[in-house]
Amino acid sequence: MSTPPNTFSFGMIGLGTMGRNLLLNLADHDFAVAGYDKDAEKIQLLAEEGAGKPVQGFTDIAAFVQQLHTPRSIMLLVPAGRIVDSVIEELLPLLSPGDILIDGGNSYFTDTTRRAAELAEAGFHFFGMGISGGEEGARFGPSMMPGGDKHAYAVVQPMFEAIAARADDGQPCVTYIGPGAAGHFVKMVHNGIEYGLMQLIAETYELMKRGLGMDNAAIGQVFTNWNSGRLQSFLIDITKDIFAFRAPGTDHLLLDDIKDEARSKGTGKWTSQVAMDLEVPVPTIDTAVALRNLSKAKALREQLATLYGPAPIPLASDPEAFLTSLEEAFFFSMVITYAQGMQMLAKASEEYAYNLQLADIAKIWRGGCIIRSRFLNDIFNAFQQAPGLEHLLLDEQVRQQVSQAVPGARTVVAAATAAGLAMPAYAASLSYFDSLRSARMPSNLIQAQRDYFGAHTYELIGHEGVFHSQWTATHEDAANKSTTTQPGPTAPIEKPVIPNK
Amino acid sequence: MSTPPNTFSFGMIGLGTMGRNLLLNLADHDFAVAGYDKDAEKIQLLAEEGAGKPVQGFTDIAAFVQQLHTPRSIMLLVPAGRIVDSVIEELLPLLSPGDILIDGGNSYFTDTTRRAAELAEAGFHFFGMGISGGEEGARFGPSMMPGGDKHAYAVVQPMFEAIAARADDGQPCVTYIGPGAAGHFVKMVHNGIEYGLMQLIAETYELMKRGLGMDNAAIGQVFTNWNSGRLQSFLIDITKDIFAFRAPGTDHLLLDDIKDEARSKGTGKWTSQVAMDLEVPVPTIDTAVALRNLSKAKALREQLATLYGPAPIPLASDPEAFLTSLEEAFFFSMVITYAQGMQMLAKASEEYAYNLQLADIAKIWRGGCIIRSRFLNDIFNAFQQAPGLEHLLLDEQVRQQVSQAVPGARTVVAAATAAGLAMPAYAASLSYFDSLRSARMPSNLIQAQRDYFGAHTYELIGHEGVFHSQWTATHEDAANKSTTTQPGPTAPIEKPVIPNK
Repeated sequence: MSTPPNTFSFGMIGLGTMGRNLLLNLADHDFAVAGYDKDAEKIQLLAEEGAGKPVQGFTDIAAFVQQLHTPRSIMLLVPAGRIVDSVIEELLPLLSPGDILIDGGNSYFTDTTRRAAELAEAGFHFFGMGISGGEEGARFGPSMMPGGDKHAYAVVQPMFEAIAARADDGQPCVTYIGPGAAGHFVKMVHNGIEYGLMQLIAETYELMKRGLGMDNAAIGQVFTNWNSGRLQSFLIDITKDIFAFRAPGTDHLLLDDIKDEARSKGTGKWTSQVAMDLEVPVPTIDTAVALRNLSKAKALREQLATLYGPAPIPLASDPEAFLTSLEEAFFFSMVITYAQGMQMLAKASEEYAYNLQLADIAKIWRGGCIIRSRFLNDIFNAFQQAPGLEHLLLDEQVRQQVSQAVPGARTVVAAATAAGLAMPAYAASLSYFDSLRSARMPSNLIQAQRDYFGAHTYELIGHEGVFHSQWTATHEDAANKSTTTQPGPTAPIEKPVIPNK
Repeated sequence: MSTPPNTFSFGMIGLGTMGRNLLLNLADHDFAVAGYDKDAEKIQLLAEEGAGKPVQGFTDIAAFVQQLHTPRSIMLLVPAGRIVDSVIEELLPLLSPGDILIDGGNSYFTDTTRRAAELAEAGFHFFGMGISGGEEGARFGPSMMPGGDKHAYAVVQPMFEAIAARADDGQPCVTYIGPGAAGHFVKMVHNGIEYGLMQLIAETYELMKRGLGMDNAAIGQVFTNWNSGRLQSFLIDITKDIFAFRAPGTDHLLLDDIKDEARSKGTGKWTSQVAMDLEVPVPTIDTAVALRNLSKAKALREQLATLYGPAPIPLASDPEAFLTSLEEAFFFSMVITYAQGMQMLAKASEEYAYNLQLADIAKIWRGGCIIRSRFLNDIFNAFQQAPGLEHLLLDEQVRQQVSQAVPGARTVVAAATAAGLAMPAYAASLSYFDSLRSARMPSNLIQAQRDYFGAHTYELIGHEGVFHSQWTATHEDAANKSTTTQPGPTAPIEKPVIPNK
């Protein structure tokens, strides 16, 4: 197995399933590649899986680095967090200036910002690259979101384009995303959208199962039907598969045996937390995050189920008609979920100067990744036509489709509400929509309250500046009142003030 | 104005309205107090407002510190963030070991954790203290949430108890909360609950105004009525006042002139972000945070209002009956909001070893603070009876009241959904409730999906361990498919695996 130096055009650190699969994918496309892992068992696995392909494993990091072409392209696929830093630290003395490091894990984007700055200082290029598609995608075509130095991207571009998934029109599902942590940021929002869509699918299952009393076969058939229409997507597709997958040696679905406590690895949570920092509303995603956490309280739920009966009542007298509404409701809520994510990207692009091309992002999400769907073509078209589109709902093609689907969404949410069935992400999507189409919201009352109790000031329609009123007449009136303050009869004092931030 | 050294029993740094008012409150209770501010104008204001009272202002920090009794009790009321650190840095060389510093601002709780450790190292006591009640509360009786060293609390306790608000039963609205950042943490959650309740009130206004077509006088009357019943609370009370408050020199409400773009200072956002870290669902609060952000997109909302008509339709044919449901819906959602906050406190108490006494916290929230309400007596009773109560909805008295109110909540959410009126926090509260009372949720599907595409494993009912299945038959089938993977006909491979965290 001895090889001459400078033999390999790409190196991978971390040979878990994802890392091995990406290497095998590269090797399939005739790139000679090397992998490094401390664990000899993984080297062995790589050798077996890669037999006959131009791929070699190393347990010695120096030997591994030495045999890579310069400038070296080295990807890290190790758990996000401190391990990434410690691997970089171990690696640095072995590198040459101009080498390219690529973090292919789900690192938090501010870590990537920091690492990119530190490594630029040291003379290296650093890419944060989101990779979606799971193990299957890594092996046969993922969607990839690389962010970092644009000039350095030219070195890795041919390899990435070769191994990426291809959309139906043959385009590779990878593109340069933007500087700094842009790639990891976009991947994070991708995962937030994924959380929202998965929660919507789970609620759909619930509505059919508990609301309409359908059996698994009938539910699976609905997902199968949906997957041949405008809802066609990877997540609906695998859901259809799951409804055909029997527990080993039995004739019932494995799904029925799985615990109803959802886990998470944090990227959905980050999306919601960062959206709040960016002041962009993504309530469907927030709801999906909250519901994963809620699902974990199994014992509490069992107690409350006995305390707060009765059980849900049937959803609809005409299940067929209801299923038509349900398809519309899903389409509507799916669009809302994507729209929230895209608006978050637009806001982040401004805030962090990522210069994101939303059309390109929609384009590379059409294949390989978990949220790939037929509807991403519509998103691509919308941002292709109007790159600066503030919100997806402003697009005319989208407007027509959404308007048609709104009544179904109302039917489903109203019926489930009356029946006592939970559909939090459906409800959040619809109330988000109804809030957004309110030219006038009741938030003036919130501003009045904030000024009343905290002197936080308010703004007036048609006037510049901020104002404060003395909403109660005399301070003394309110003294020692525990739960009430007395309003006074005197005229308000309204005055422009300097805002107290 | 020259005074002998060691004259003052309490010092305040930062003489904005809050700082001055707290000093005047202390002086009213015969504590000799000193204030420091660089701004001579504020010293002048303090002198005017405190004429005849035992209060003195300083623009020289050394002179200020010198004239305080030892161990000194010094409160900082300066903007949260770096300013707190720089003031502490300036102060430290002037202090003696054993002195007590109290941060009375809305500092982020992890900053407080850090400062408490640093100051303990240096020989000082540090308290993070949440103060609620606004300017009015500071002057005549706030609710206060001090966290820090329990022994040091004895020094400041008499002063804090003297100036605190009193609940209807005469109890002071201050108690030792817990170690470290416990006080600031509890105040943060208080503010999160405040966000939720304010959003619910705003939606109530919207439902009456746009949904029932009521005028301001009639809406104000409803809030007035509510405030004499089980909804009695500070926030409903001030809302009633706001509906009686005319714009200067006019006969119409100031409220109608206020812009519908809500601002925020971050504590609500923190509550949601930290709840996600703690994995505790607080969707009503999340929704309130998202809706403040949504309200800021005024131009977008105006565009979407023209694109996504029609305008909402009338809510109900019988407005009187609907208002009865609305009162129930508000009661229901209010309870849910408090319940989410209390569960978050319980979880944080475990996570951070705060040893929070939830009954005590409910008790001191009954007066002085923004979320004070008649219902806090019920919360107090629930946690008094069962200090380890996992969730407020488990309490029998609460159960009876909530069960009675659920139908009203369903009526309101279903009607507003059908009418096209936004009520996101009402909807979030109800769907949270319906999820929580689900002994079986559809989250098993989410676990199946996660294992399908990411090999994240799942758990099985009645089995220990985690499992992974090969949900697709052959990898090769899925090669180069952009949006579909083909399920195969072969039997599933189900095997226990080590979880890949």
